Amino acid sequence: MAHIAVVAGDGIGPEVVAQARKVLDAVVPGIEATEYDLGAARYHRTGEVLPDSVLDELANHDAILLGAVGDPTVPPGVLERGLLLKLRFAFDQYVNLRPSRLWPGVAGPLAAVKPGEVDLVVVREGTEGLYAGAGGALHRDTPAEVATEESLNTRHGVERVIRDAFARAARRERRKVTLVHKTNVLTHAGSLWARAFAAVAAEHPDVTTEYQHIDAAAMFLVTNPSRYDVVVTDNLFGDILTDIAAAVTGGIGLAASGCINPEGRYPSMFEPVHGSAPDIAGQGVADPVAAVLSAALLLDQLGHPDAAARVTAAVGTELAGRTPGAPLRTEEVGDRLAALSVA
Amino acid sequence: MAHIAVVAGDGIGPEVVAQARKVLDAVVPGIEATEYDLGAARYHRTGEVLPDSVLDELANHDAILLGAVGDPTVPPGVLERGLLLKLRFAFDQYVNLRPSRLWPGVAGPLAAVKPGEVDLVVVREGTEGLYAGAGGALHRDTPAEVATEESLNTRHGVERVIRDAFARAARRERRKVTLVHKTNVLTHAGSLWARAFAAVAAEHPDVTTEYQHIDAAAMFLVTNPSRYDVVVTDNLFGDILTDIAAAVTGGIGLAASGCINPEGRYPSMFEPVHGSAPDIAGQGVADPVAAVLSAALLLDQLGHPDAAARVTAAVGTELAGRTPGAPLRTEEVGDRLAALSVA
Ligand SMILES: CC(C)[C@H](C(=O)O)[C@@H](O)C(=O)O
Ligand SMILES: CC(C)[C@H](C(=O)O)[C@@H](O)C(=O)O
Repeated sequence: MAHIAVVAGDGIGPEVVAQARKVLDAVVPGIEATEYDLGAARYHRTGEVLPDSVLDELANHDAILLGAVGDPTVPPGVLERGLLLKLRFAFDQYVNLRPSRLWPGVAGPLAAVKPGEVDLVVVREGTEGLYAGAGGALHRDTPAEVATEESLNTRHGVERVIRDAFARAARRERRKVTLVHKTNVLTHAGSLWARAFAAVAAEHPDVTTEYQHIDAAAMFLVTNPSRYDVVVTDNLFGDILTDIAAAVTGGIGLAASGCINPEGRYPSMFEPVHGSAPDIAGQGVADPVAAVLSAALLLDQLGHPDAAARVTAAVGTELAGRTPGAPLRTEEVGDRLAALSVA
Repeated sequence: MAHIAVVAGDGIGPEVVAQARKVLDAVVPGIEATEYDLGAARYHRTGEVLPDSVLDELANHDAILLGAVGDPTVPPGVLERGLLLKLRFAFDQYVNLRPSRLWPGVAGPLAAVKPGEVDLVVVREGTEGLYAGAGGALHRDTPAEVATEESLNTRHGVERVIRDAFARAARRERRKVTLVHKTNVLTHAGSLWARAFAAVAAEHPDVTTEYQHIDAAAMFLVTNPSRYDVVVTDNLFGDILTDIAAAVTGGIGLAASGCINPEGRYPSMFEPVHGSAPDIAGQGVADPVAAVLSAALLLDQLGHPDAAARVTAAVGTELAGRTPGAPLRTEEVGDRLAALSVA
């Protein structure tokens, strides 16, 4: 039986993770879970962000379920780089998977877009690009200061994530992949991405392809999000596009994500896109839907696609039954989703 | 009297530029204009994109008015890099100014945002960052290929554009500047931007400031664009944010831009954000509003703020009187705007 690590984290993290686990237990009884105390609380208590020993232990799990880490009291970047990005890189989670759906019952911000019309997934590269940490500064704090950030892109890294995107597209109804980059300005990386994309596309004559510059894609996500099926892009562009996609489908409060090592050599990590929301923590009013959808991605990755589909369908039922603006109780939503998932 | 260079360009470029010149002639009679034939047509005829001799001639003008360059028949990047970016860098146009307003009469895509509620300007850095052209590739076309793109940021370059943003904010009603970057990942460049921002902010106690990561800003531009007044950001983030801002305010068809060398050591360049739109070229149906608004930015830069304000007000009247979806004639709109600008 699978053994997952649970990092409930800070703020509303523990509240929403509890519901995700409730749902997991309901649909696939017997998944073992070990809790790891990481995040702002531990950082303040011990100064530790992610001890090597914990990293080694995490490596011995089949997957990681994460709630949310962070707090305004922690200096910016400490947990982001020391924990989230560290795990993505250490566990070679090169597929950063971010589905966006405009669910029936959810009021999106776009006047012309109806629920059900948006159903896309961004396959964001997770281990390269401007996130590589290559950069530096000279003459810091003087008028002569120069600071650099380098985007590193390898054929190895680019091709494997494009391959994953095409494989996903081939399993979807519309079978379309959009490559997003900025080939007219970032000519070296852009050319590498475009050539790798063309090579993989040639192996998938059944999949439709298109290319868009990042600025155009950001615009079309607002004016016509329905046009997208699978979007593949680099680490930074994916960071930006997925927040726009979340915005047009009702906000990051509903957005799930997976940082996936598809080969399973290392554990994949699943987490809601939202943060720890300290302002509403402890009140039992956080929406657990994003955490539950992240658990569905986890189930899919662990080889339980049917259970994943049941959980996703349960979320659909839950959201369709909501009255916009009505208050919700975290626990009750979790109970309903668990019940719906096994109904 | 001022002497401007006019690059009408390709597709609908000449049609919309003709209206912009009509308006210019009406509000500030006597501006001299010399036409330069640059763009796809010239490239196909002569193979030239921007000969040095033309660059030298352009340098001797007070400003450049550009319609649109480009055509699907030109290899991607040739005109973008050889003409547009070349001019931005050669003429040190470090302020890339992009105002976005949701005009009364214009149907934006956001259900909850009313006309008049969005009035922001993005001050995008125009001469540094990932646009510097620093990058390369090794082992090209082999499985070992690595491609890099480097973002170069100097205190000189960052501080001057931030200074411009604060000066603009100080002249606006809300007096607020939002810095957008990705300081939690791009730590070296992010730190430089944040420190330069703090230093300039200290000189402007009357201006409110905030910081947002690029992903959050992209999201908030969709969920709450009214919150922005002046946004200052780097070259690539500005490219993306301005297309989102255009999208939420009715599309790039209405968006104006200026590539400005504030000191006037080199000519500034003004152009609509839209492209050459070959599909509708020659039919007299292109909307000249973006070109006319760009001409208003040109007037402001040349020291005619009153004339600029009259042109902008004329656009407001024109748009308020439109019936959404009704066909328009380029010439007629130009005539109306010229008449309204002197009324
Ligand atoms: C927290 C931050 C480092 C992270 C990123 O930039 O990838 C976040 O924005 C995300 O999208 O998961
Ligand atoms: C054409 C391209 C090089 C340009 C840019 O990236 O700056 C365009 O997108 C713009 O925003 O003016």
